[in-house]
Amino acid sequence: MVDMKRFKKVAIYSSLRDKKVSLISYQLEEVLENLGIKVLLSKSSIYSITSKKKIYSDAYIEKNADLVVCIGGDGTLLGSARKFGSKGLPVLGINLGKVGFLTDIAPEELTQSIKQIVAGKYTIDSRFFLKASLGTSKKQYIALNEAVIHSGQVAQMIEYELYIDNKSVYRQKADGIIVSTPTGSTAYSLSGNASIVHPNVEAITLIPMFPHSLTARPLLVAKTSNIKIKVLSTKGATLSMDSHNFLNLKKDNEINLSQSDSDLKLIHPLEHDFYAACRNKLGWSLGISD
Amino acid sequence: MVDMKRFKKVAIYSSLRDKKVSLISYQLEEVLENLGIKVLLSKSSIYSITSKKKIYSDAYIEKNADLVVCIGGDGTLLGSARKFGSKGLPVLGINLGKVGFLTDIAPEELTQSIKQIVAGKYTIDSRFFLKASLGTSKKQYIALNEAVIHSGQVAQMIEYELYIDNKSVYRQKADGIIVSTPTGSTAYSLSGNASIVHPNVEAITLIPMFPHSLTARPLLVAKTSNIKIKVLSTKGATLSMDSHNFLNLKKDNEINLSQSDSDLKLIHPLEHDFYAACRNKLGWSLGISD
Amino acid sequence: MVDMKRFKKVAIYSSLRDKKVSLISYQLEEVLENLGIKVLLSKSSIYSITSKKKIYSDAYIEKNADLVVCIGGDGTLLGSARKFGSKGLPVLGINLGKVGFLTDIAPEELTQSIKQIVAGKYTIDSRFFLKASLGTSKKQYIALNEAVIHSGQVAQMIEYELYIDNKSVYRQKADGIIVSTPTGSTAYSLSGNASIVHPNVEAITLIPMFPHSLTARPLLVAKTSNIKIKVLSTKGATLSMDSHNFLNLKKDNEINLSQSDSDLKLIHPLEHDFYAACRNKLGWSLGISD
Amino acid sequence: MVDMKRFKKVAIYSSLRDKKVSLISYQLEEVLENLGIKVLLSKSSIYSITSKKKIYSDAYIEKNADLVVCIGGDGTLLGSARKFGSKGLPVLGINLGKVGFLTDIAPEELTQSIKQIVAGKYTIDSRFFLKASLGTSKKQYIALNEAVIHSGQVAQMIEYELYIDNKSVYRQKADGIIVSTPTGSTAYSLSGNASIVHPNVEAITLIPMFPHSLTARPLLVAKTSNIKIKVLSTKGATLSMDSHNFLNLKKDNEINLSQSDSDLKLIHPLEHDFYAACRNKLGWSLGISD
Repeated sequence: MVDMKRFKKVAIYSSLRDKKVSLISYQLEEVLENLGIKVLLSKSSIYSITSKKKIYSDAYIEKNADLVVCIGGDGTLLGSARKFGSKGLPVLGINLGKVGFLTDIAPEELTQSIKQIVAGKYTIDSRFFLKASLGTSKKQYIALNEAVIHSGQVAQMIEYELYIDNKSVYRQKADGIIVSTPTGSTAYSLSGNASIVHPNVEAITLIPMFPHSLTARPLLVAKTSNIKIKVLSTKGATLSMDSHNFLNLKKDNEINLSQSDSDLKLIHPLEHDFYAACRNKLGWSLGISD
Repeated sequence: MVDMKRFKKVAIYSSLRDKKVSLISYQLEEVLENLGIKVLLSKSSIYSITSKKKIYSDAYIEKNADLVVCIGGDGTLLGSARKFGSKGLPVLGINLGKVGFLTDIAPEELTQSIKQIVAGKYTIDSRFFLKASLGTSKKQYIALNEAVIHSGQVAQMIEYELYIDNKSVYRQKADGIIVSTPTGSTAYSLSGNASIVHPNVEAITLIPMFPHSLTARPLLVAKTSNIKIKVLSTKGATLSMDSHNFLNLKKDNEINLSQSDSDLKLIHPLEHDFYAACRNKLGWSLGISD
Repeated sequence: MVDMKRFKKVAIYSSLRDKKVSLISYQLEEVLENLGIKVLLSKSSIYSITSKKKIYSDAYIEKNADLVVCIGGDGTLLGSARKFGSKGLPVLGINLGKVGFLTDIAPEELTQSIKQIVAGKYTIDSRFFLKASLGTSKKQYIALNEAVIHSGQVAQMIEYELYIDNKSVYRQKADGIIVSTPTGSTAYSLSGNASIVHPNVEAITLIPMFPHSLTARPLLVAKTSNIKIKVLSTKGATLSMDSHNFLNLKKDNEINLSQSDSDLKLIHPLEHDFYAACRNKLGWSLGISD
Repeated sequence: MVDMKRFKKVAIYSSLRDKKVSLISYQLEEVLENLGIKVLLSKSSIYSITSKKKIYSDAYIEKNADLVVCIGGDGTLLGSARKFGSKGLPVLGINLGKVGFLTDIAPEELTQSIKQIVAGKYTIDSRFFLKASLGTSKKQYIALNEAVIHSGQVAQMIEYELYIDNKSVYRQKADGIIVSTPTGSTAYSLSGNASIVHPNVEAITLIPMFPHSLTARPLLVAKTSNIKIKVLSTKGATLSMDSHNFLNLKKDNEINLSQSDSDLKLIHPLEHDFYAACRNKLGWSLGISD
């Protein structure tokens, strides 16, 4: 195993107001500074980090850090992935005691793991983002898990037409449609009965939500596909990216979806195992449960 | 086959603004009046019925009609079922050219069918309603298809605890939960992957919507069950009855759901066949599609 | 709570060769004899019960016992339910350390529970059997969980036509079809993606197995329904009852399925709770998993 | 659009005893010979082709033909794909009047389409095969749709452990497991509730069949994965490839599955559209169904 690039300026980021975050952050600072590594505390972590240390802006971090360590659950990591990871910065996740699919370092392994990682003993797990734009607008929205086009109301159908690479696929009535990356396949899309997709499969999954037709099924297309969804309902719809950014859509609006230009570099300890995370998080068991 | 009660005062109801409704309504009036039957045009059908005939209030119809003929799709019938059917009035559905699960007389069979029915040649298909109330409040909401408790937003989970006959069943995180009658089992609940329930099965189906857990499954309980759903989410939730009445719910609100006190008497021609409706509406085929 | 009938002659039954069965059986004998209750050891339990005690035939037990206590898992209880329960004898299940849906007394609660039960402190959980017969033959086969009609081979379709109360429902190509009682709804039928049905719901579920059509869905019909399945495939099919009795079917054979004439009286301790069994066996959790 | 290689020696193959096959074969011969193309009638098509023309062995065809035209349904094409396509010969499918996913030329378009294709106006749709081998044995079995490991009996569980690239994924009890290519995703695997996978997605889907656990889900892995399934059941299991070759497996047998060394070159007319085939075969509709 060849060692990877060593990290020298490490940003610490969190978006949770939680005492545990502060504790982990202090410990992380200490470990890193003892290793002679420059630590950049993110402005976004100000809720929980009460030290008098200097706080750096997102813009500064983006330009100067070579690794972002994010403290929290998978939701927190999604946020820092969109913020920093989409600009090319590697991201590493520390969980708050419960392993996530994305945040795989537990607090008790922190010192040991972080030493290995900054020394270049890690793997890079490349994850693509989805980018969305409305019609010919240049404004882009990104998601690491999924884009959802939805009526925005319970049991309220929308109608849309789906195009892949400019070919019509189907016209459908449903509560909405999920467009998911492999990363998202263990998140919301899994609740929608879609298949789990290993992170290295180069595919996007389209999942109708409460479709009006019994023949609708989740569909996987190549990650290089250009996906266009045209809203046909008079009442419009809502686009959400990682349940985060929301955009109102009108009748005849066309949403373009495709993989983003640069991938997330998700950093893992060498022993990381996607299937172990599945067994742990999804209740798969190696033993026999009868 | 013993003949059923003959009908003598028949109300005509629709809630659709559609020229077809007017045409069917005129034809219906004529057929009924030729048979010496008193016709009561509903106020609710004023959009489409432009004759100078007298219009009767819902209250008058409720007291005086012995049958409500409703013109439209299944959605229109749901409305008149809640309005008149829940008060004991038998309801018959005329569709606008496409057979429904509830509206099974096609316009071209209208004259023939209606003569048979008012003469007592029909069957009564008894369908129960769900009634919902909030906490100890006396105010009731009814639904013929389903009650839905939902976050009111896309990909936004709520948490709730389900009790059946005062026993805790599970505590769950999901987008929401559908509580469906057998009548609703071919509607929204079918999109949620629940089983189809024949109208004469005395059961209520509970269907988690995009549940956060892989072990969640639809559950059928006896129709005599007292169902209580307690909202645990800080952000609250929304209750909808047949996607119609909406009620905002707060944390710790408890929704009580049970079968309503009186059933809908849904009138069918003698040849009505639930499975034929399934084959027709759901794309089941008697032949081989390979 | 009014006490139920006290038990005076109790048979002990098992079909497992397992040392644990012997130990539980000895303990059970002792407890029962100390209470002055006559114990009848079943011939079927001879594998594991090595005492010199008298062994009674199934026929003798059927005529003389007023309770059968069965030791083992749910599979063992299914067997004794078909053997004794279908003849009217109440059945009680002791598990071997892992709670089942049907065998709810754990070995460590044995003494305490059995004292309560023979003293009349118990509930009767009535469960219906399915009976199957071929064409006009009088020979009947029964199942407590499910009947399955299947090609008998992997990925080999059969074709059949389903009739409910002599009405054609659908003609279908599939690997097979499961006909399940509510008792079976937490067994094989659950693997086939059908809904869970509370034991007191009076319904039978029909579940296509790997259907060739995307519109096929599980269907619940009233438990009083007469179900007929006609085999249309030239290659025939196989009928199995509780994965136990197997019957070869030829083209044009008709299988009649309906509820059996008498129900199983399944005995539970007073504190028995179906939903607790679901939480325990299905991994539902009262707590929050994420 | 650059023209592809022209075809000069075309084999005609079918495995069906059907008069329609003979008629199409005659027409095909005529069209091809008029174009100056050498026609090689396959021995396998002898059932239906009664002309006195010379019949060529599979070995001769394999060496000398540059295109195999196969007449029949998708099942027939699967057979000729395994026989000739796996050796590098391009395969084209003519259906018998009903469009398939693989056989997309209808008899009435035959003359027109075949002229275009032999003239180099076609597309090549590359489809990978799965190859299976048992333990360290060199003998290989191939499938274009799917490999299935199954108990070989209805409602009879097997237990197995799944490894991907030598990492344990899960140990599972189920009726069996399907390992499907994208080509197979619209066949048996679709009946098992797995997602549809576009042919150009480089992935293999693993689908548990009637799994004993509620947390089991279909899983997609990269097509370059080395899949190993170890049989743990004492009673063994059966491996089938495209429901065709069957191999008995014993306890502790390990089946290795991976993509085959060469892909099928499936020939399509220029206007071929995968999504059009989905709409046609799966009942997706461009219009509005309700």
